[in-house]
Amino acid sequence: MTTAPLLDRLHTQMAFVQEIDKLKRVLRRNTLMDGSRRENDAEHSWQLCMLALVLAEHAPPGVDLERVIAMLLIHDLVEIDAGDTFIYDPEAVLHQPERERAAADRIFGLLPDDQTAKFRALWDEFEARATPEAKFAKALDRLAPLLANHHTEGGTWALYKITADQVRRNAKIIEAGSPSLGAYATELIELSIKRGHLSEG
Amino acid sequence: MTTAPLLDRLHTQMAFVQEIDKLKRVLRRNTLMDGSRRENDAEHSWQLCMLALVLAEHAPPGVDLERVIAMLLIHDLVEIDAGDTFIYDPEAVLHQPERERAAADRIFGLLPDDQTAKFRALWDEFEARATPEAKFAKALDRLAPLLANHHTEGGTWALYKITADQVRRNAKIIEAGSPSLGAYATELIELSIKRGHLSEG
Repeated sequence: MTTAPLLDRLHTQMAFVQEIDKLKRVLRRNTLMDGSRRENDAEHSWQLCMLALVLAEHAPPGVDLERVIAMLLIHDLVEIDAGDTFIYDPEAVLHQPERERAAADRIFGLLPDDQTAKFRALWDEFEARATPEAKFAKALDRLAPLLANHHTEGGTWALYKITADQVRRNAKIIEAGSPSLGAYATELIELSIKRGHLSEG
Repeated sequence: MTTAPLLDRLHTQMAFVQEIDKLKRVLRRNTLMDGSRRENDAEHSWQLCMLALVLAEHAPPGVDLERVIAMLLIHDLVEIDAGDTFIYDPEAVLHQPERERAAADRIFGLLPDDQTAKFRALWDEFEARATPEAKFAKALDRLAPLLANHHTEGGTWALYKITADQVRRNAKIIEAGSPSLGAYATELIELSIKRGHLSEG
């Protein structure tokens, strides 16, 4: 049988589970790969984990894939409060860190203390982008919208008039986490330019 | 630089990534926890992984959480071809295994051979429910709709006139993967009956 303190702890964890269900209603700018509708943060997080599983061989040697996937699962939870920040919107990006830190305080704070500390440390690690795990996780996070835009004739690049140079700067984060995925990103960018879906601006 | 065979392999992996984006368009019967719309398989898979992270202490000792999460990430990919099967629809459940095996052949077959074998073995393990990892993963897969129904005044139980005994039989799969989560499921079921959201039938 479950004892009373364990049951209290489980109820606390379940309140967190209920709260984070809201991630399914946070919409991103990019669409699904078929362009049918905008993608939400929960399905985006699943996709990044799938990229991590499928592309694990593109991570630097010795990377702990379990920690990469844990980071990817929780990396966007702060957007329940802070909203999705479009990386090409300088105004929104400016106050993003403080908005997201406040969100992290509240949302991870719903967990039992030991788990608050553990999840917050994972999120801080992802944001700091200093470890190979965080760099690889961030690379996948930047690769995903590039794939979506590539498959939808320019997608948000075309919609928001993003230039090739902006996308190339962004792709440096992919290269920092995985040189081979960085090379692949460059290939996609050049192909998108050739097809007229991304312009030199 | 990426060599030609490695680049071929990456392109094969990326074709798989594009194909599985369709999981975001496979709808389940249950809704989000706020009842606002039906849940899709991709965001459901993300939620199960979050349950695994948060409720890891409810897994039997020694369970390999990385394998549990990998199973949960891929467990519903077969539904891209086979569709979501409502567990309380005996007709649909009857031909589910053959439909899903054919889907697994096709979808995992899109990957490079070594990964086809690896992903297929994980999915077979999940389906066979013989290892502690598969039992725990399946327990979470059964717990999630119970949470959704509990938070939406009976949800699909009310909609499809599912009885308490049917839900209790289903909850045995939760108990088989985690006795403490099984006890919690029983608690939710009894609470739902008391509130009039689930009937003895």
